[in-house]
Amino acid sequence: MTVENMENTVKLPVLRLGESGPSQIEDIVVRELPLTIFFNGTELVTMLCSPAELKELAVGFLFSEGFIESKEDIKGIVIDDKRGLARVESAGSSKMADEGTFKRFIASGCGRGASFYSAADIDQKSKVESEATISAATVHELMKGFQQRSEVFRATGGVHSAALVRDGEIVAFAEDIGRHNAVDKVFGHCLLEGIATKDGAIITSGRISSEILLKVAKRSIPILISKSAPTNLGVKLADDLGVTLVGFVRGRRMNVYTHSRRIKTDGE
Amino acid sequence: MTVENMENTVKLPVLRLGESGPSQIEDIVVRELPLTIFFNGTELVTMLCSPAELKELAVGFLFSEGFIESKEDIKGIVIDDKRGLARVESAGSSKMADEGTFKRFIASGCGRGASFYSAADIDQKSKVESEATISAATVHELMKGFQQRSEVFRATGGVHSAALVRDGEIVAFAEDIGRHNAVDKVFGHCLLEGIATKDGAIITSGRISSEILLKVAKRSIPILISKSAPTNLGVKLADDLGVTLVGFVRGRRMNVYTHSRRIKTDGE
Repeated sequence: MTVENMENTVKLPVLRLGESGPSQIEDIVVRELPLTIFFNGTELVTMLCSPAELKELAVGFLFSEGFIESKEDIKGIVIDDKRGLARVESAGSSKMADEGTFKRFIASGCGRGASFYSAADIDQKSKVESEATISAATVHELMKGFQQRSEVFRATGGVHSAALVRDGEIVAFAEDIGRHNAVDKVFGHCLLEGIATKDGAIITSGRISSEILLKVAKRSIPILISKSAPTNLGVKLADDLGVTLVGFVRGRRMNVYTHSRRIKTDGE
Repeated sequence: MTVENMENTVKLPVLRLGESGPSQIEDIVVRELPLTIFFNGTELVTMLCSPAELKELAVGFLFSEGFIESKEDIKGIVIDDKRGLARVESAGSSKMADEGTFKRFIASGCGRGASFYSAADIDQKSKVESEATISAATVHELMKGFQQRSEVFRATGGVHSAALVRDGEIVAFAEDIGRHNAVDKVFGHCLLEGIATKDGAIITSGRISSEILLKVAKRSIPILISKSAPTNLGVKLADDLGVTLVGFVRGRRMNVYTHSRRIKTDGE
Protein backbone atom coordinates (compact mmCIF):
# COMPACT_ATOMS: atom_id res chain seq x y z
CA MET A 1 0.00 0.00 0.00
CA THR A 2 1.53 3.32 -1.03
CA VAL A 3 1.48 6.52 0.97
CA GLU A 4 -1.28 7.84 -1.28
CA ASN A 5 -3.46 4.88 -0.54
CA MET A 6 -2.97 5.22 3.20
CA GLU A 7 -4.42 8.70 2.99
CA ASN A 8 -7.49 7.31 1.30
CA THR A 9 -8.49 5.05 4.19
CA VAL A 10 -9.06 5.29 7.95
CA LYS A 11 -9.67 2.71 10.71
CA LEU A 12 -13.02 2.83 12.50
CA PRO A 13 -14.56 0.72 15.29
CA VAL A 14 -17.21 -1.67 13.96
CA LEU A 15 -19.55 -4.23 15.52
CA ARG A 16 -19.02 -7.37 13.45
CA LEU A 17 -21.92 -9.84 13.58
CA GLY A 18 -20.83 -13.26 12.35
CA GLU A 19 -21.43 -16.93 12.91
CA SER A 20 -19.34 -16.90 16.07
CA GLY A 21 -21.41 -14.08 17.58
CA PRO A 22 -20.82 -10.34 17.85
CA SER A 23 -17.32 -8.89 18.18
CA GLN A 24 -15.90 -5.38 18.31
CA ILE A 25 -13.30 -4.96 15.58
CA GLU A 26 -11.49 -2.21 13.75
CA ASP A 27 -12.27 -1.99 10.06
CA ILE A 28 -10.58 -0.07 7.28
CA VAL A 29 -13.05 2.41 5.79
CA VAL A 30 -12.51 4.48 2.68
CA ARG A 31 -12.30 8.22 3.29
CA GLU A 32 -14.58 10.74 1.60
CA LEU A 33 -13.61 14.41 1.47
CA PRO A 34 -15.66 17.32 0.14
CA LEU A 35 -13.21 19.33 -2.01
CA THR A 36 -14.14 22.85 -3.10
CA ILE A 37 -12.30 24.13 -6.17
CA PHE A 38 -11.68 27.86 -6.63
CA PHE A 39 -10.50 29.09 -10.02
CA ASN A 40 -9.07 32.61 -10.13
CA GLY A 41 -10.81 33.36 -6.84
CA THR A 42 -14.25 32.15 -7.93
CA GLU A 43 -15.80 29.13 -6.21
CA LEU A 44 -16.63 26.66 -8.98
CA VAL A 45 -17.73 23.42 -7.44
CA THR A 46 -17.59 21.13 -4.42
CA MET A 47 -17.06 17.47 -5.15
CA LEU A 48 -16.84 14.39 -2.97
CA CYS A 49 -13.55 12.58 -3.50
CA SER A 50 -10.79 10.46 -2.01
CA PRO A 51 -8.29 12.72 -0.24
CA ALA A 52 -5.08 11.66 -2.03
CA GLU A 53 -3.78 13.56 -5.06
CA LEU A 54 -5.98 16.63 -4.63
CA LYS A 55 -3.70 18.72 -6.82
CA GLU A 56 -4.04 16.22 -9.65
CA LEU A 57 -7.81 16.15 -9.18
CA ALA A 58 -8.20 19.93 -9.23
CA VAL A 59 -5.99 20.29 -12.30
CA GLY A 60 -7.58 17.32 -14.09
CA PHE A 61 -11.07 18.65 -13.40
CA LEU A 62 -10.22 22.12 -14.75
CA PHE A 63 -8.56 20.46 -17.75
CA SER A 64 -11.53 18.17 -18.48
CA GLU A 65 -13.97 21.04 -18.18
CA GLY A 66 -11.98 23.31 -20.50
CA PHE A 67 -10.80 25.94 -18.00
CA ILE A 68 -7.13 25.19 -18.63
CA GLU A 69 -5.46 23.65 -21.67
CA SER A 70 -1.85 23.13 -20.61
CA LYS A 71 0.52 23.31 -17.67
CA GLU A 72 1.53 26.79 -18.82
CA ASP A 73 -2.01 28.02 -18.11
CA ILE A 74 -1.43 27.42 -14.40
CA LYS A 75 0.15 30.26 -12.42
CA GLY A 76 -0.33 28.79 -8.96
CA ILE A 77 -2.00 25.96 -7.04
CA VAL A 78 -2.68 25.97 -3.31
CA ILE A 79 -4.15 22.85 -1.71
CA ASP A 80 -5.56 22.95 1.83
CA ASP A 81 -6.31 19.31 2.56
CA LYS A 82 -7.47 20.01 6.12
CA ARG A 83 -10.29 22.28 4.98
CA GLY A 84 -10.80 20.62 1.61
CA LEU A 85 -9.91 23.59 -0.59
CA ALA A 86 -8.05 23.81 -3.90
CA ARG A 87 -7.21 27.25 -5.27
CA VAL A 88 -5.93 27.40 -8.83
CA GLU A 89 -4.82 30.65 -10.49
CA SER A 90 -4.42 30.82 -14.24
CA ALA A 91 -1.75 32.68 -16.15
CA GLY A 92 -2.70 35.37 -18.66
CA SER A 93 -6.28 36.41 -19.27
CA SER A 94 -8.78 34.63 -17.09
CA LYS A 95 -11.02 32.07 -18.76
CA MET A 96 -13.60 32.59 -16.07
CA ALA A 97 -16.90 31.14 -17.04
CA ASP A 98 -19.94 33.25 -17.55
CA GLU A 99 -23.10 32.04 -15.86
CA GLY A 100 -24.08 29.83 -18.80
CA THR A 101 -20.78 28.02 -19.03
CA PHE A 102 -20.69 27.62 -15.27
CA LYS A 103 -24.03 25.87 -15.18
CA ARG A 104 -23.12 23.67 -18.07
CA PHE A 105 -19.87 22.49 -16.57
CA ILE A 106 -21.43 21.71 -13.21
CA ALA A 107 -24.05 19.74 -15.03
CA SER A 108 -21.64 17.80 -17.21
CA GLY A 109 -19.30 17.13 -14.33
CA CYS A 110 -21.95 15.22 -12.48
CA GLY A 111 -23.87 13.68 -15.31
CA ARG A 112 -26.64 16.20 -15.24
CA GLY A 113 -26.20 18.18 -18.42
CA ALA A 114 -28.34 17.85 -21.49
CA SER A 115 -26.12 20.05 -23.58
CA PHE A 116 -23.76 17.30 -24.68
CA TYR A 117 -26.40 14.91 -25.85
CA SER A 118 -27.66 16.55 -28.99
CA ALA A 119 -26.38 15.37 -32.36
CA ALA A 120 -25.25 18.93 -33.11
CA ASP A 121 -22.90 18.92 -30.13
CA ILE A 122 -21.35 15.67 -31.16
CA ASP A 123 -20.80 16.78 -34.74
CA GLN A 124 -18.88 19.77 -33.49
CA LYS A 125 -16.38 17.61 -31.68
CA SER A 126 -13.66 16.18 -33.83
CA LYS A 127 -13.70 12.43 -34.13
CA VAL A 128 -10.70 10.55 -32.77
CA GLU A 129 -8.83 9.58 -35.95
CA SER A 130 -5.80 7.84 -34.41
CA GLU A 131 -4.21 4.85 -36.16
CA ALA A 132 -3.04 3.39 -32.83
CA THR A 133 -3.65 -0.31 -32.27
CA ILE A 134 -3.28 -2.71 -29.37
CA SER A 135 -3.22 -6.50 -29.27
CA ALA A 136 -5.87 -8.48 -27.41
CA ALA A 137 -3.07 -10.18 -25.46
CA THR A 138 -1.74 -6.79 -24.31
CA VAL A 139 -5.24 -5.74 -23.21
CA HIS A 140 -5.43 -8.83 -20.98
CA GLU A 141 -1.95 -8.24 -19.54
CA LEU A 142 -2.72 -4.60 -18.85
CA MET A 143 -5.96 -5.46 -17.10
CA LYS A 144 -4.13 -7.98 -14.93
CA GLY A 145 -1.54 -5.39 -13.89
CA PHE A 146 -4.26 -2.78 -13.42
CA GLN A 147 -6.24 -4.97 -11.06
CA GLN A 148 -3.17 -6.05 -9.08
CA ARG A 149 -2.26 -2.44 -8.60
CA SER A 150 -5.65 -1.46 -7.21
CA GLU A 151 -6.37 -4.64 -5.27
CA VAL A 152 -5.25 -3.53 -1.80
CA PHE A 153 -7.22 -0.36 -1.91
CA ARG A 154 -10.26 -1.88 -3.54
CA ALA A 155 -10.38 -4.40 -0.70
CA THR A 156 -11.78 -1.59 1.44
CA GLY A 157 -14.75 -1.47 -0.89
CA GLY A 158 -16.32 0.66 -3.54
CA VAL A 159 -13.35 2.47 -5.00
CA HIS A 160 -12.66 3.09 -8.67
CA SER A 161 -9.36 3.10 -10.51
CA ALA A 162 -8.21 4.56 -13.81
CA ALA A 163 -4.95 4.37 -15.74
CA LEU A 164 -3.35 5.82 -18.85
CA VAL A 165 -1.55 3.36 -21.13
CA ARG A 166 1.17 4.33 -23.61
CA ASP A 167 3.13 1.86 -25.74
CA GLY A 168 1.58 -1.09 -23.93
CA GLU A 169 2.44 0.13 -20.42
CA ILE A 170 0.58 1.86 -17.61
CA VAL A 171 2.20 5.30 -17.22
CA ALA A 172 -0.33 6.92 -14.87
CA PHE A 173 -2.67 5.40 -12.29
CA ALA A 174 -5.17 6.84 -9.80
CA GLU A 175 -7.92 5.72 -7.46
CA ASP A 176 -10.95 7.60 -6.15
CA ILE A 177 -14.39 6.96 -4.73
CA GLY A 178 -15.70 8.65 -7.90
CA ARG A 179 -15.31 7.11 -11.36
CA HIS A 180 -14.93 10.54 -12.92
CA ASN A 181 -12.48 11.73 -10.30
CA ALA A 182 -10.16 8.75 -10.92
CA VAL A 183 -9.98 9.65 -14.63
CA ASP A 184 -9.53 13.36 -13.85
CA LYS A 185 -6.67 12.52 -11.45
CA VAL A 186 -4.95 10.60 -14.24
CA PHE A 187 -5.38 13.54 -16.63
CA GLY A 188 -4.20 16.01 -13.97
CA HIS A 189 -1.10 13.90 -13.31
CA CYS A 190 -0.36 13.70 -17.05
CA LEU A 191 -0.74 17.45 -17.50
CA LEU A 192 1.51 18.25 -14.53
CA GLU A 193 4.15 15.69 -15.52
CA GLY A 194 4.08 16.42 -19.23
CA ILE A 195 2.79 12.98 -20.25
CA ALA A 196 0.92 13.09 -23.57
CA THR A 197 -2.53 11.49 -23.58
CA LYS A 198 -3.10 11.57 -27.36
CA ASP A 199 -2.98 8.12 -29.01
CA GLY A 200 -2.93 6.41 -25.60
CA ALA A 201 -5.53 4.16 -23.99
CA ILE A 202 -7.53 4.56 -20.79
CA ILE A 203 -8.35 1.65 -18.48
CA THR A 204 -11.18 2.12 -16.01
CA SER A 205 -12.66 -0.14 -13.35
CA GLY A 206 -16.05 1.43 -13.70
CA ARG A 207 -19.05 1.28 -15.95
CA ILE A 208 -18.63 3.13 -19.26
CA SER A 209 -21.36 5.73 -19.46
CA SER A 210 -21.65 8.60 -21.89
CA GLU A 211 -19.79 11.02 -19.64
CA ILE A 212 -16.56 9.01 -19.43
CA LEU A 213 -16.70 8.59 -23.19
CA LEU A 214 -16.88 12.33 -23.76
CA LYS A 215 -14.07 12.97 -21.29
CA VAL A 216 -11.79 10.49 -23.04
CA ALA A 217 -12.63 11.56 -26.59
CA LYS A 218 -11.91 15.18 -25.65
CA ARG A 219 -8.31 14.10 -24.95
CA SER A 220 -8.05 12.35 -28.37
CA ILE A 221 -7.65 8.96 -26.71
CA PRO A 222 -8.66 6.27 -29.24
CA ILE A 223 -9.01 3.23 -26.95
CA LEU A 224 -11.11 2.83 -23.81
CA ILE A 225 -10.86 -0.42 -21.84
CA SER A 226 -13.02 -1.50 -18.90
CA LYS A 227 -13.61 -4.61 -16.87
CA SER A 228 -17.23 -3.49 -16.56
CA ALA A 229 -20.12 -2.98 -18.95
CA PRO A 230 -20.89 0.04 -21.10
CA THR A 231 -24.29 1.68 -21.39
CA ASN A 232 -26.02 1.89 -24.77
CA LEU A 233 -25.37 5.65 -24.86
CA GLY A 234 -21.70 5.01 -24.12
CA VAL A 235 -21.58 2.61 -27.09
CA LYS A 236 -23.35 5.10 -29.36
CA LEU A 237 -20.98 7.92 -28.46
CA ALA A 238 -17.93 5.66 -28.89
CA ASP A 239 -19.21 4.79 -32.35
CA ASP A 240 -19.88 8.43 -33.27
CA LEU A 241 -16.62 9.75 -31.80
CA GLY A 242 -14.34 7.11 -33.31
CA VAL A 243 -13.32 5.51 -29.99
CA THR A 244 -12.60 1.77 -29.72
CA LEU A 245 -14.65 0.58 -26.76
CA VAL A 246 -13.63 -2.66 -25.03
CA GLY A 247 -15.68 -3.93 -22.08
CA PHE A 248 -15.96 -6.97 -19.82
CA VAL A 249 -12.22 -7.71 -19.97
CA ARG A 250 -12.26 -10.77 -17.71
CA GLY A 251 -10.30 -13.99 -17.76
CA ARG A 252 -9.50 -14.71 -21.44
CA ARG A 253 -12.47 -12.83 -22.84
CA MET A 254 -13.42 -9.32 -23.82
CA ASN A 255 -16.21 -7.58 -25.73
CA VAL A 256 -15.31 -5.09 -28.45
CA TYR A 257 -18.29 -2.79 -28.94
CA THR A 258 -16.99 -0.29 -31.51
CA HIS A 259 -14.16 0.34 -34.00
CA SER A 260 -12.67 -3.12 -33.56
CA ARG A 261 -9.98 -2.40 -36.18
CA ARG A 262 -7.70 -1.15 -33.40
CA ILE A 263 -7.73 -4.49 -31.53
CA LYS A 264 -5.30 -6.98 -33.07
CA THR A 265 -5.88 -10.67 -32.47
CA ASP A 266 -3.30 -13.45 -32.82
CA GLY A 267 -4.36 -14.26 -36.35
CA GLU A 268 -3.57 -10.78 -37.68
CA MET B 1 -37.47 -10.27 -15.89
CA THR B 2 -40.31 -7.81 -15.51
CA VAL B 3 -41.54 -5.40 -18.15
CA GLU B 4 -39.75 -2.55 -16.34
CA ASN B 5 -36.45 -4.35 -16.55
CA MET B 6 -36.88 -5.03 -20.26
CA GLU B 7 -37.08 -1.29 -20.83
CA ASN B 8 -33.78 -0.85 -19.05
CA THR B 9 -31.78 -2.98 -21.47
CA VAL B 10 -31.18 -3.28 -25.22
CA LYS B 11 -29.42 -5.82 -27.44
CA LEU B 12 -26.36 -4.64 -29.37
CA PRO B 13 -23.93 -6.38 -31.77
CA VAL B 14 -20.57 -7.10 -30.12
CA LEU B 15 -17.30 -8.65 -31.25
CA ARG B 16 -16.50 -11.22 -28.58
CA LEU B 17 -12.83 -12.16 -28.34
CA GLY B 18 -12.39 -15.42 -26.42
CA GLU B 19 -10.24 -18.52 -26.27
CA SER B 20 -12.00 -19.99 -29.28
CA GLY B 21 -11.28 -16.92 -31.41
CA PRO B 22 -13.40 -13.94 -32.39
CA SER B 23 -17.16 -14.24 -32.83
CA GLN B 24 -19.96 -11.80 -33.59
CA ILE B 25 -22.61 -11.99 -30.88
CA GLU B 26 -25.51 -9.99 -29.54
CA ASP B 27 -25.05 -8.73 -26.01
CA ILE B 28 -27.53 -7.21 -23.59
CA VAL B 29 -26.45 -3.68 -22.74
CA VAL B 30 -27.96 -1.47 -20.08
CA ARG B 31 -29.75 1.62 -21.40
CA GLU B 32 -28.87 5.15 -20.35
CA LEU B 33 -31.32 7.99 -20.90
CA PRO B 34 -30.81 11.71 -20.27
CA LEU B 35 -33.99 12.83 -18.45
CA THR B 36 -34.73 16.54 -18.13
CA ILE B 37 -37.07 17.49 -15.29
CA PHE B 38 -39.27 20.58 -15.54
CA PHE B 39 -41.02 21.82 -12.41
CA ASN B 40 -43.84 24.33 -12.93
CA GLY B 41 -42.45 25.08 -16.38
CA THR B 42 -38.88 25.72 -15.26
CA GLU B 43 -36.10 23.39 -16.39
CA LEU B 44 -34.41 22.14 -13.24
CA VAL B 45 -31.95 19.45 -14.15
CA THR B 46 -30.93 16.78 -16.65
CA MET B 47 -29.86 13.48 -15.18
CA LEU B 48 -28.63 10.24 -16.70
CA CYS B 49 -30.83 7.34 -15.68
CA SER B 50 -32.32 3.99 -16.59
CA PRO B 51 -35.48 4.53 -18.67
CA ALA B 52 -37.98 2.57 -16.53
CA GLU B 53 -40.14 4.28 -13.89
CA LEU B 54 -39.44 7.84 -15.02
CA LYS B 55 -42.52 9.13 -13.19
CA GLU B 56 -41.25 7.65 -9.93
CA LEU B 57 -37.80 9.12 -10.56
CA ALA B 58 -39.08 12.63 -11.27
CA VAL B 59 -41.38 12.60 -8.23
CA GLY B 60 -38.74 11.04 -5.97
CA PHE B 61 -36.15 13.56 -7.07
CA LEU B 62 -38.46 16.52 -6.39
CA PHE B 63 -39.38 14.93 -3.05
CA SER B 64 -35.75 14.35 -2.02
CA GLU B 65 -34.78 17.88 -2.99
CA GLY B 66 -37.65 19.47 -1.09
CA PHE B 67 -39.73 20.76 -4.00
CA ILE B 68 -42.75 18.65 -3.06
CA GLU B 69 -43.72 17.18 0.29
CA SER B 70 -46.71 14.97 -0.47
CA LYS B 71 -48.80 13.51 -3.27
CA GLU B 72 -51.26 16.36 -2.78
CA ASP B 73 -48.56 18.84 -3.88
CA ILE B 74 -48.65 17.31 -7.38
CA LYS B 75 -51.22 18.73 -9.81
CA GLY B 76 -49.99 16.95 -12.92
CA ILE B 77 -47.19 14.80 -14.31
CA VAL B 78 -46.41 14.38 -18.00
CA ILE B 79 -43.67 11.94 -19.00
CA ASP B 80 -42.27 11.94 -22.56
CA ASP B 81 -39.97 8.92 -22.58
CA LYS B 82 -39.08 9.33 -26.26
CA ARG B 83 -37.58 12.77 -25.75
CA GLY B 84 -36.54 12.21 -22.13
CA LEU B 85 -38.74 14.86 -20.53
CA ALA B 86 -40.65 14.92 -17.25
CA ARG B 87 -42.97 17.84 -16.55
CA VAL B 88 -44.35 18.14 -13.03
CA GLU B 89 -46.83 20.83 -12.00
CA SER B 90 -47.44 21.56 -8.35
CA ALA B 91 -50.74 22.42 -6.73
CA GLY B 92 -51.13 25.69 -4.83
CA SER B 93 -48.38 28.27 -4.65
CA SER B 94 -45.26 27.36 -6.55
CA LYS B 95 -42.22 26.43 -4.51
CA MET B 96 -40.01 27.44 -7.36
CA ALA B 97 -36.43 27.79 -6.30
CA ASP B 98 -34.61 31.06 -6.38
CA GLU B 99 -31.16 31.00 -7.96
CA GLY B 100 -29.44 30.11 -4.68
CA THR B 101 -31.67 27.14 -3.94
CA PHE B 102 -31.39 25.98 -7.52
CA LYS B 103 -27.61 25.86 -7.41
CA ARG B 104 -27.61 24.14 -4.08
CA PHE B 105 -29.94 21.38 -5.15
CA ILE B 106 -28.06 20.70 -8.37
CA ALA B 107 -24.92 20.46 -6.34
CA SER B 108 -26.33 18.16 -3.68
CA GLY B 109 -28.03 15.97 -6.24
CA CYS B 110 -24.75 15.06 -7.83
CA GLY B 111 -22.47 15.05 -4.84
CA ARG B 112 -21.04 18.44 -5.52
CA GLY B 113 -22.47 20.63 -2.80
CA ALA B 114 -20.56 21.85 0.22
CA SER B 115 -23.61 23.27 1.88
CA PHE B 116 -24.62 20.07 3.65
CA TYR B 117 -21.27 19.32 5.16
CA SER B 118 -20.98 21.97 7.82
CA ALA B 119 -21.80 21.07 11.42
CA ALA B 120 -24.39 23.86 11.49
CA ASP B 121 -26.34 22.24 8.67
CA ILE B 122 -26.41 18.90 10.39
CA ASP B 123 -27.55 20.36 13.71
CA GLN B 124 -30.51 21.92 11.95
CA LYS B 125 -31.72 18.56 10.72
CA SER B 126 -33.64 16.57 13.25
CA LYS B 127 -32.01 13.34 14.32
CA VAL B 128 -33.84 10.13 13.52
CA GLU B 129 -35.27 9.11 16.91
CA SER B 130 -37.16 5.96 15.88
CA GLU B 131 -37.38 3.01 18.27
CA ALA B 132 -37.67 0.55 15.35
CA THR B 133 -35.49 -2.56 15.52
CA ILE B 134 -34.65 -5.40 13.15
CA SER B 135 -33.06 -8.80 13.80
CA ALA B 136 -29.74 -9.75 12.25
CA ALA B 137 -31.44 -12.86 10.80
CA THR B 138 -34.04 -10.67 9.07
CA VAL B 139 -31.30 -8.46 7.63
CA HIS B 140 -29.70 -11.54 6.05
CA GLU B 141 -33.02 -12.81 4.68
CA LEU B 142 -33.88 -9.40 3.26
CA MET B 143 -30.48 -9.09 1.56
CA LYS B 144 -30.96 -12.54 0.01
CA GLY B 145 -34.36 -11.58 -1.40
CA PHE B 146 -33.02 -8.20 -2.50
CA GLN B 147 -30.19 -9.75 -4.46
CA GLN B 148 -32.39 -12.42 -6.05
CA ARG B 149 -34.75 -9.72 -7.19
CA SER B 150 -32.05 -7.68 -8.89
CA GLU B 151 -29.92 -10.53 -10.18
CA VAL B 152 -31.26 -10.74 -13.73
CA PHE B 153 -30.86 -7.06 -14.38
CA ARG B 154 -27.53 -6.78 -12.62
CA ALA B 155 -26.20 -9.53 -14.86
CA THR B 156 -26.04 -6.91 -17.61
CA GLY B 157 -23.55 -5.02 -15.48
CA GLY B 158 -23.17 -1.95 -13.37
CA VAL B 159 -26.71 -1.35 -12.17
CA HIS B 160 -27.76 -0.36 -8.67
CA SER B 161 -30.82 -1.41 -6.73
CA ALA B 162 -32.65 0.03 -3.75
CA ALA B 163 -35.60 -1.16 -1.67
CA LEU B 164 -37.79 0.03 1.17
CA VAL B 165 -38.46 -2.45 3.96
CA ARG B 166 -41.44 -2.27 6.32
CA ASP B 167 -42.23 -4.88 8.97
CA GLY B 168 -39.47 -7.15 7.73
CA GLU B 169 -40.63 -7.16 4.08
CA ILE B 170 -39.59 -5.40 0.90
CA VAL B 171 -42.50 -3.14 -0.07
CA ALA B 172 -40.81 -1.08 -2.81
CA PHE B 173 -37.93 -1.93 -5.15
CA ALA B 174 -36.19 -0.06 -7.97
CA GLU B 175 -33.12 -0.33 -10.19
CA ASP B 176 -31.14 2.37 -11.96
CA ILE B 177 -27.69 3.01 -13.38
CA GLY B 178 -27.38 5.69 -10.68
CA ARG B 179 -27.23 4.85 -6.97
CA HIS B 180 -29.13 8.01 -6.10
CA ASN B 181 -31.73 7.48 -8.78
CA ALA B 182 -32.57 3.98 -7.49
CA VAL B 183 -33.28 5.43 -4.02
CA ASP B 184 -35.26 8.33 -5.50
CA LYS B 185 -37.37 5.88 -7.56
CA VAL B 186 -38.21 4.01 -4.36
CA PHE B 187 -39.21 7.25 -2.63
CA GLY B 188 -41.21 8.39 -5.67
CA HIS B 189 -43.06 5.07 -5.76
CA CYS B 190 -43.82 5.31 -2.03
CA LEU B 191 -45.11 8.86 -2.34
CA LEU B 192 -47.34 8.00 -5.32
CA GLU B 193 -48.67 4.81 -3.72
CA GLY B 194 -49.09 6.24 -0.22
CA ILE B 195 -46.49 3.96 1.40
CA ALA B 196 -45.00 5.53 4.54
CA THR B 197 -41.21 5.62 4.71
CA LYS B 198 -40.89 6.68 8.38
CA ASP B 199 -39.58 3.92 10.68
CA GLY B 200 -38.74 1.72 7.67
CA ALA B 201 -35.37 0.54 6.42
CA ILE B 202 -33.58 1.12 3.12
CA ILE B 203 -31.48 -1.54 1.40
CA THR B 204 -29.02 -0.41 -1.24
CA SER B 205 -26.59 -2.28 -3.46
CA GLY B 206 -24.20 0.64 -3.58
CA ARG B 207 -21.55 2.24 -1.49
CA ILE B 208 -22.89 4.34 1.39
CA SER B 209 -21.56 7.85 0.96
CA SER B 210 -22.65 10.98 2.77
CA GLU B 211 -25.27 11.84 0.16
CA ILE B 212 -27.30 8.64 0.52
CA LEU B 213 -27.18 9.08 4.28
CA LEU B 214 -28.64 12.58 4.08
CA LYS B 215 -31.34 11.45 1.65
CA VAL B 216 -32.41 8.61 3.95
CA ALA B 217 -32.26 10.63 7.19
CA LYS B 218 -34.43 13.31 5.58
CA ARG B 219 -37.19 10.67 5.29
CA SER B 220 -36.83 9.70 8.98
CA ILE B 221 -35.64 6.23 8.06
CA PRO B 222 -33.68 4.79 11.01
CA ILE B 223 -31.95 1.81 9.36
CA LEU B 224 -29.73 1.73 6.26
CA ILE B 225 -28.46 -1.62 4.97
CA SER B 226 -25.92 -2.22 2.21
CA LYS B 227 -23.96 -5.11 0.83
CA SER B 228 -21.17 -2.62 0.13
CA ALA B 229 -18.89 -0.46 2.24
CA PRO B 230 -19.59 2.96 3.70
CA THR B 231 -17.24 5.93 3.51
CA ASN B 232 -15.94 7.52 6.72
CA LEU B 233 -18.15 10.58 6.08
CA GLY B 234 -21.16 8.28 5.64
CA VAL B 235 -20.37 6.69 9.03
CA LYS B 236 -19.94 10.10 10.68
CA LEU B 237 -23.26 11.39 9.34
CA ALA B 238 -25.05 8.17 10.35
CA ASP B 239 -23.68 8.64 13.86
CA ASP B 240 -24.68 12.32 14.01
CA LEU B 241 -28.12 11.77 12.46
CA GLY B 242 -29.12 8.76 14.56
CA VAL B 243 -29.19 6.27 11.67
CA THR B 244 -28.20 2.62 12.18
CA LEU B 245 -25.71 1.87 9.42
CA VAL B 246 -25.15 -1.77 8.41
CA GLY B 247 -22.63 -2.58 5.69
CA PHE B 248 -20.96 -5.58 4.07
CA VAL B 249 -24.01 -7.82 4.54
CA ARG B 250 -22.55 -10.93 2.92
CA GLY B 251 -22.92 -14.61 3.71
CA ARG B 252 -23.52 -14.86 7.45
CA ARG B 253 -21.71 -11.65 8.32
CA MET B 254 -22.41 -7.96 8.56
CA ASN B 255 -20.73 -4.85 9.96
CA VAL B 256 -22.75 -2.49 12.16
CA TYR B 257 -21.09 0.89 12.07
CA THR B 258 -23.44 3.05 14.16
CA HIS B 259 -26.38 2.89 16.58
CA SER B 260 -26.21 -0.89 16.93
CA ARG B 261 -29.06 -0.92 19.47
CA ARG B 262 -31.53 -1.33 16.59
CA ILE B 263 -29.97 -4.63 15.42
CA LYS B 264 -31.15 -7.56 17.52
CA THR B 265 -29.00 -10.70 17.63
CA ASP B 266 -30.17 -14.19 18.62
CA GLY B 267 -29.04 -13.78 22.20
CA GLU B 268 -31.32 -10.81 22.85
